[in-house]
Amino acid sequence: MKQVPIGVSARHIHLSLEHIERLFGEGYQLNVLKDLSQPGQYAAAETVAVVGPKGRFDKVRILGPARGKTQLEVSRSDAFALGMNPPVRESGHTEGTPGITVIGPAGQVDIEEGVIVAARHIHFHRDDAARWGIADKQLLTVKVEGERALIFEKVLARVSDQFALDMHIDTDEANAAGVKTGDVAVILS
Amino acid sequence: MKQVPIGVSARHIHLSLEHIERLFGEGYQLNVLKDLSQPGQYAAAETVAVVGPKGRFDKVRILGPARGKTQLEVSRSDAFALGMNPPVRESGHTEGTPGITVIGPAGQVDIEEGVIVAARHIHFHRDDAARWGIADKQLLTVKVEGERALIFEKVLARVSDQFALDMHIDTDEANAAGVKTGDVAVILS
Repeated sequence: MKQVPIGVSARHIHLSLEHIERLFGEGYQLNVLKDLSQPGQYAAAETVAVVGPKGRFDKVRILGPARGKTQLEVSRSDAFALGMNPPVRESGHTEGTPGITVIGPAGQVDIEEGVIVAARHIHFHRDDAARWGIADKQLLTVKVEGERALIFEKVLARVSDQFALDMHIDTDEANAAGVKTGDVAVILS
Repeated sequence: MKQVPIGVSARHIHLSLEHIERLFGEGYQLNVLKDLSQPGQYAAAETVAVVGPKGRFDKVRILGPARGKTQLEVSRSDAFALGMNPPVRESGHTEGTPGITVIGPAGQVDIEEGVIVAARHIHFHRDDAARWGIADKQLLTVKVEGERALIFEKVLARVSDQFALDMHIDTDEANAAGVKTGDVAVILS
């Protein structure tokens, strides 16, 4: 049975180096609060505020390290509260997505694009993928059990020797399925 | 193919006659804003505020007519914002659920129980259920198509000659599935 641990992603932001400096000051370095399941990735001690047309979130966790482009990942419930309608996208694919205002202690940045609802996906280490016959970019069907049992279709496989086995869903998806981080999903096909 | 229209339930409240009077004044009658898909049910023009341990919602729609017991239905995302952890329950089954403070223009009520996350369900008119061989209380498997396609398991069938065919899911479930009111689901089994 192809069992995968579930990691629930709450709203969070990835920042470019340039934006870290504009929000926190020149030469600023993020502090590590907690390591994440993917090697080298961490939740930073720092948060920012994000301000949309109809609402704001005051403490959005920054995930490090810095990326090439700033990207805010929200659930659709979050997007509704902000007054926005971002598309479901794979991380990094932000062309044509809405922008937002990001506020830090040292300044404010208005990004022109970068707000997405993250497409659900499973990170596979190359060895796990090989063992189970799963290819990068394959769309999988994945079941979760329990009171709100459901089967997610079109779950994107992402394979790399930099990845650890983990299924990432957002808070809407976790709530709809009645699961939390650490629960287990099963790949059906 | 057993196609069912989807109705997405945003957070809402059903009030007892006693609570309508305590919140809006003696002898108060709710006004109809819009009829709902189920015969005789309506969204009232009136709203109330609800206040939980960590958050509040200022404009929660009342659904009428009055019921025997007051019941607040929220998504799990809503519950988190309120600072509560209500169980997933069938409507009307509120024993042992948390209470909340409800505020209207004429007064405030602290209900001792009645906050639930509504269990997803399909209303069937008796004739639809008979035609498709579906029994009251049966648990169904239901598919929705699209970018976030998924299959809901354990969808409760509710059969009555007072019901119109409609599948009710909450906003978390709708967001996870990428669907909205008026979209169509298919009963697989």
